[in-house]
Amino acid sequence: MGEFKHKIRVSWFETDAAGVVHFSNYYKFFERAEMEFWRSLEIDYKKIMKEYNIWLPRVEASCKFISPCYFDDELEIRLTIGGLARKSIRYNFQVWNLSTAKLAAEGHMTVVSVSKDTNRSVAIPSGIADSLKDFI
Amino acid sequence: MGEFKHKIRVSWFETDAAGVVHFSNYYKFFERAEMEFWRSLEIDYKKIMKEYNIWLPRVEASCKFISPCYFDDELEIRLTIGGLARKSIRYNFQVWNLSTAKLAAEGHMTVVSVSKDTNRSVAIPSGIADSLKDFI
Amino acid sequence: MGEFKHKIRVSWFETDAAGVVHFSNYYKFFERAEMEFWRSLEIDYKKIMKEYNIWLPRVEASCKFISPCYFDDELEIRLTIGGLARKSIRYNFQVWNLSTAKLAAEGHMTVVSVSKDTNRSVAIPSGIADSLKDFI
Amino acid sequence: MGEFKHKIRVSWFETDAAGVVHFSNYYKFFERAEMEFWRSLEIDYKKIMKEYNIWLPRVEASCKFISPCYFDDELEIRLTIGGLARKSIRYNFQVWNLSTAKLAAEGHMTVVSVSKDTNRSVAIPSGIADSLKDFI
Repeated sequence: MGEFKHKIRVSWFETDAAGVVHFSNYYKFFERAEMEFWRSLEIDYKKIMKEYNIWLPRVEASCKFISPCYFDDELEIRLTIGGLARKSIRYNFQVWNLSTAKLAAEGHMTVVSVSKDTNRSVAIPSGIADSLKDFI
Repeated sequence: MGEFKHKIRVSWFETDAAGVVHFSNYYKFFERAEMEFWRSLEIDYKKIMKEYNIWLPRVEASCKFISPCYFDDELEIRLTIGGLARKSIRYNFQVWNLSTAKLAAEGHMTVVSVSKDTNRSVAIPSGIADSLKDFI
Repeated sequence: MGEFKHKIRVSWFETDAAGVVHFSNYYKFFERAEMEFWRSLEIDYKKIMKEYNIWLPRVEASCKFISPCYFDDELEIRLTIGGLARKSIRYNFQVWNLSTAKLAAEGHMTVVSVSKDTNRSVAIPSGIADSLKDFI
Repeated sequence: MGEFKHKIRVSWFETDAAGVVHFSNYYKFFERAEMEFWRSLEIDYKKIMKEYNIWLPRVEASCKFISPCYFDDELEIRLTIGGLARKSIRYNFQVWNLSTAKLAAEGHMTVVSVSKDTNRSVAIPSGIADSLKDFI
C-alpha cells in the first residue's frame, strides 16, 4: 500500500499569537499534499476538472492536533488512500514535523466525484480510480 | 440545554475557484463563534488567557460539508456544548446558511485547558466551567 | 464628502507569532469594508456582478502599518472615495483601532470595471457611478 | 545587483470565486520569498529573531496586480533590495507567472528593525546589513 510524501515549510503567516501553526492551516496542508499527489500520478487536478469534467468537493475533513509546529519548521505530509468507493475517495494524512521529529497531526478528508455539468455526484471515472491502484 | 448563535457574512476572500466557501474557512467560522460565545458569557478569551493563565488549544476538529455557501451569504453558526470533561471542552457546531435556508455544515472542536506557565494540561478553572452551566 | 465606517473584531486566526494582526489581513479588512460600503448604497456587489455584468478586480493596493492590532481588538475601517475615473475607482482606507484609540493602518485599493463577458475594461455603469455622488 | 528567485505553486485555497488568485495572497508570496531569501544568505529569520533579538515588522507594502494567476500555475517571485537605510530595508518584488509567461504582479515591502526587548526601532545589526552587500 503506497504512501505519498510532500514537504512543506511553515510560513510566518501560518502562525498565530500562541506562536504555533493555526489549526485551520493543517487542512490547507492536506489539500496541498492532495494536489501534489495527483500531480505525482500524472493526472493533475486541472486535468481531473477539464478532461473528466468533475470536481472533487470535500464532504468531510477531520484532524487531531498532536504536537505544535512552529515558524520555519519543515513538515512532511504523508498521504495514504483510506478508502475508495464508487463515488468517493478517502485520504488519510499524517503531518510529521521534521524539525521536532514528532507527529504533529493526523486526519482525513473525504471527497466526492461531482459532475461539473449537472452538479450531481457521479461514479469516479475509471481513469482516476485506476491510477490509485498502487495506493489501495 | 442552551445554544449560542452567531451571524457571519461570507467574504469574497473566503470563496474559491469553485465559487463556494473554501472548506478551511468553516473551521475559522467555528473559532469566531467560539470567541463570541465566551464574550456572551462575560468571560472573554482574553480574560481566560490573562486571569486564568491558560490557553485552550484545539486538539481535534472535524466538519461535514453538507451544502455550499456562496459569496455574501449570511450564515448563522450555532454552538452547543457537546461535552465538558475535567480538562477539556467539546463544542458542537452547525452552520446554517440563512440565504439558502439550508444546513451548510456540521462539526465539532475539542479544546484542552493548558497552563501558559508549564505548557501542561490542567483542570479547567471552576470559574470557566461554572459559566457553562446553562449549556450542559 | 462622505465617509463609510465598518466595524470588525480581530479574530485569533488573524494574528501571527508576533502576537499582532498579520499585515496581509488589512487588505482583507479593506475588502470587507468595500463590500459593506456597496451594500450600504443598496447596490451590493452581487448585484454589480449580476445586473451590470462586470467585476471590479483590484489593480493596485497599498497599506502603511502604523500601530499594531491585537487579538479581540475592535477596529473601525473608514472608507472614502479617493478618485472616480471613467473605468476605475480608488478607495482610501483608514483602520482605527478602537481598543487602543490609535490609527492602525492607512491605505488604498484601486479597482477597474471589467466586463464579465469580454474580460476587457469598460466604463463604470452610470448606475454605479451615480451611487457614489455623496462620496465624491 | 543581485536578484533572488523563489518558485511557488498556486494552491486551490489561494483562488477566489473569480477563478483567480485572491489579491491578498500576493503579499503572502512576498513574505515567503523574503523568508527564503534570508535562508539563502544563511541568516534565516529565526536566527534574526534569536541571535540579533530583533523583529522586522512590515511598515508598508504595495502591489500592482497586472495579469491574473490561476490554480496550479507556477510562479516565480523575484526579490531585489530596493533600499537599505540605517533602520529599514525595502524589498522590491516581481511575480512572474511561468505558466502564462506573463508578469503577474509587482510590488514592495518595507520592514523596520525593532528590538524585541524595548519594542523600539534600532539600527539594523551589521551582520544583517553586511549579508545584503551583493544585493545593493
